Amino acid sequence: MAISQKIRNYAAQASWIRRMFEEGINLKKQYGCENVFDFSLGNPNAPPPELFREQLLRIMTASEAGLHGYTPNAGHPEARKAVATTLCEAEGMQLSAEHVVMTCGAGGALNVIFKALLDPGDEVLVPAPYFVEYPFYVDNASGVTKFVATRDDFSLDLEAIGRAITDRTKVVLINSPNNPTGRVYDEKSIRGLGSLLMERSLSSGRDLYLVSDEPYAEIVYDNVKVPSVLSSYRNSIKASSYSKSLSLPGERIGYIAVNPEMKEVEELMGALILCNRILGFVNAPALMQKVISCLQGVKVNVAEYERKRSLLCDGLSSLGYSFRKPEGAFYLFPRSPITDDVEFVRLLQKRRILTVPGTGFGGPGYFRIAYCVDDATIMNAMGGFKEAIDEASNR
Amino acid sequence: MAISQKIRNYAAQASWIRRMFEEGINLKKQYGCENVFDFSLGNPNAPPPELFREQLLRIMTASEAGLHGYTPNAGHPEARKAVATTLCEAEGMQLSAEHVVMTCGAGGALNVIFKALLDPGDEVLVPAPYFVEYPFYVDNASGVTKFVATRDDFSLDLEAIGRAITDRTKVVLINSPNNPTGRVYDEKSIRGLGSLLMERSLSSGRDLYLVSDEPYAEIVYDNVKVPSVLSSYRNSIKASSYSKSLSLPGERIGYIAVNPEMKEVEELMGALILCNRILGFVNAPALMQKVISCLQGVKVNVAEYERKRSLLCDGLSSLGYSFRKPEGAFYLFPRSPITDDVEFVRLLQKRRILTVPGTGFGGPGYFRIAYCVDDATIMNAMGGFKEAIDEASNR
Repeated sequence: MAISQKIRNYAAQASWIRRMFEEGINLKKQYGCENVFDFSLGNPNAPPPELFREQLLRIMTASEAGLHGYTPNAGHPEARKAVATTLCEAEGMQLSAEHVVMTCGAGGALNVIFKALLDPGDEVLVPAPYFVEYPFYVDNASGVTKFVATRDDFSLDLEAIGRAITDRTKVVLINSPNNPTGRVYDEKSIRGLGSLLMERSLSSGRDLYLVSDEPYAEIVYDNVKVPSVLSSYRNSIKASSYSKSLSLPGERIGYIAVNPEMKEVEELMGALILCNRILGFVNAPALMQKVISCLQGVKVNVAEYERKRSLLCDGLSSLGYSFRKPEGAFYLFPRSPITDDVEFVRLLQKRRILTVPGTGFGGPGYFRIAYCVDDATIMNAMGGFKEAIDEASNR
Repeated sequence: MAISQKIRNYAAQASWIRRMFEEGINLKKQYGCENVFDFSLGNPNAPPPELFREQLLRIMTASEAGLHGYTPNAGHPEARKAVATTLCEAEGMQLSAEHVVMTCGAGGALNVIFKALLDPGDEVLVPAPYFVEYPFYVDNASGVTKFVATRDDFSLDLEAIGRAITDRTKVVLINSPNNPTGRVYDEKSIRGLGSLLMERSLSSGRDLYLVSDEPYAEIVYDNVKVPSVLSSYRNSIKASSYSKSLSLPGERIGYIAVNPEMKEVEELMGALILCNRILGFVNAPALMQKVISCLQGVKVNVAEYERKRSLLCDGLSSLGYSFRKPEGAFYLFPRSPITDDVEFVRLLQKRRILTVPGTGFGGPGYFRIAYCVDDATIMNAMGGFKEAIDEASNR
């Protein structure tokens, strides 16, 4: 046997997702890409802001010595400083470059954080539905993921989180705006979560850590404000990236920011920087570090996503689909018209509409539609969405 | 305690290296960078070939849709194909895009390979001296690193490797041209290693894997030929990067190539692609994948490194230092004039010369000089190298 038993098991578990993915590829081959309505991936269709290209070309033209060399494992000092300066305002806290580590995207950031924090068997609590990669990231660091259901409206259930905390719990991981639900946790629940973790840390004598994964923080609608998680709790760590705010997910540029008031902040920063190195990331891509240093406060045209959200929500609503309108990110998470969401996703696939069953996100009975796609994809899929819900209701 | 016990231990072990590193920073602050002779890091000083900048600017100007979006976890099909085409010639084998995964540098590649291959406790044999990060990479995947001494001339000791193979051995990891010794393993020893692993796999019924880390393959001197590892053994995997061949170490672009004749090659490729995703690399940086697709066969000016090697070797030789002339990479690994290499490195540091003790690479009694630096650094350090060996000989 060539491969590890664990990876073999992962591959087997993932096989039905892969099968659906492969069926999608076959559909595209058979009918042509333009006749397949692919809502399966969160690969943003908005182009990066024009300023991104301008700054990249300027930096390449200046061609400073060492531009493509190793950076410090923590990142270019200027990139760390630029991020810290932006966060001071956004979080209402005094962060400096020393509290920031540049990473290979938010995925890299989370792996570095878990490696730095977790001893084998330490538990990470994750509200469900959740981003599918989290359990892998926790397991990479020998941690154990425990899921806690959110309320019916996908908001945080603080009582349930409180009940789930054990003497092995080390981290609570939240993601807002949420993938797959589009939910933004409000100020009250974030403050409440901070108070809960503070209280339980004090009563147990074991510090609990709050990790907040926020790559969608800039993609919000209706003037919703994403509350500052860092300022809600002392032992808090933010993971983020420019993947969605600047439409650069392939470039793998993100960061970790740590609450400067954390008791052992220096030790943690040292551990994060060490882990960035020894996990093989080494440093965040060098050129992109330079570019994002000049693009703080710049973001893609969110109004475009807001328009797509309306197109999709209005369309599906009129067909009888039931959902909570997302406040952020570019995902809609409607209720499946039949109990079996995998089966309903198959009914959509018969109409060449590719979506992902909620089961994959720990949200059975729902399915995810990524609407970071062309308007035409949304509009032309409506016929198929109608047929599928009609077929479901005739069962 | 904030951080994991394991990371705390790593940080403690690394503390003397860090202390030396910090002393180096203090020296630079005190005397100015130009008066400190920093041979401690393998951050290449050769600029990337001009064609790199040209191609990058061309690609950015064309600004194809989705240029910065997620690529498939395995990499852009065109990048995989370009790498495979180059390897067909270099390795004398029939590789196709399906045998290549684009990675975040060779560091990312090795982490992906170990994660895909190793079950907990599986042993990885590593000839010493070795690149300092290897034991971390193996441990990340719950493997165990076992070191095997090389011969006095740093060549592979096949008998010793044979003796070190146990029923827990899964991988032999080699690195040629070698960091820190500059040794290139010759054709005979590579073929011999392949035969040994074949024989031992057959006799034990457990397949052994040969992983070859080759980021310095293009940096060789005196017309030395780096033999093909892939073609020497069926169960072989190559990890490499453009960090040194194109002087892009900060951009984190590399690849994995798998011997197409491996028995379970499809299963392994699936596992590697899955691991690239779940370790949080997700995909190799997208823009760099496009750029290296156009730069196959292009490399930095190796004659420059060859000249630096002569400058350094001639200078140190005339001062009485003893070493084996490196055949590749840009490291010299001289014998320490006193038994305690850490102490000798301190004697050099007193003369503002920064090097790394061989102890850090599993090669006590030696020290490493990275000569990917300005000519002036080499020439101006000679006075200090003389003083240090004189002080050592008067002890």
